[in-house]
Amino acid sequence: MELHPDLEPVGFLIGSWRGSGRGQYPTIEPFSYTEEVSYLPGPGKPFLVYTQRTRGADGAPLHSEAGYLRMTPDGPELVIAQPTGLTELHSGRRDDMMLEFQSIVVGATPTAKPVGEVTRRIVVSGDELSYTLDMAYADVPLTLHLEATLQRIEV
Amino acid sequence: MELHPDLEPVGFLIGSWRGSGRGQYPTIEPFSYTEEVSYLPGPGKPFLVYTQRTRGADGAPLHSEAGYLRMTPDGPELVIAQPTGLTELHSGRRDDMMLEFQSIVVGATPTAKPVGEVTRRIVVSGDELSYTLDMAYADVPLTLHLEATLQRIEV
Repeated sequence: MELHPDLEPVGFLIGSWRGSGRGQYPTIEPFSYTEEVSYLPGPGKPFLVYTQRTRGADGAPLHSEAGYLRMTPDGPELVIAQPTGLTELHSGRRDDMMLEFQSIVVGATPTAKPVGEVTRRIVVSGDELSYTLDMAYADVPLTLHLEATLQRIEV
Repeated sequence: MELHPDLEPVGFLIGSWRGSGRGQYPTIEPFSYTEEVSYLPGPGKPFLVYTQRTRGADGAPLHSEAGYLRMTPDGPELVIAQPTGLTELHSGRRDDMMLEFQSIVVGATPTAKPVGEVTRRIVVSGDELSYTLDMAYADVPLTLHLEATLQRIEV
């Protein structure tokens, strides 16, 4: 299937990635995790299918999320669902091989812990992808929560 | 991996399903589609990973979505991301092998066409899954948009 031309500016992101990261937040103990991420082209459409899974240091499943990175005339957007009962809708911008996203809406089901603002920053350099995620939660303003470095893998 | 005990009440939904459906809405021409859906247990967690893809009568990819059906003490919840730039957060209830979901929040990115309320109803009978999706959009109140009947497949 040919790549949709709108995806060419984010072609550097396409693939599967694996590596490790660190989590921190004023309300929790710092933790480390391993992660697998993939950004794969939708079938002839101007979006990437995004899936993500992390495991704790002991190998136990931690977080997972799924969604889409869609290319629009106004720039890239992220649309994410999380089994914690949250959704994130982001507007973004691209600068070379860096993508920066700012949440527009973070939704929560009635039983979920509502999160405030979220920002996500992704940088690719060759076969290495690093990202940071900042989050506002409860009384804590936008603060670094996650940072990870992943390597491109063949799948 | 053992099934999380909270998933037992929705065990009837677990698996992959394929079939066909019909779409309609006051603002569009009716259309038919084929569909593949899966609801697969998260790794030892109280949620199902949901993925869905449809194709038009000509085989061309139409819609897709991804998310989670999570079991909570207050009942099932749905968390869905769509490459159209929308997210749906639903509260639900189960009655035997029927699940009914009512949207709490339907989010949209700045470039997406915002949708109003959405309801989803899923009924499983043996190896057959049928669902309906009602949607409010623009000036149209909650109205039947999609209905499909799928059969369980081995994958």
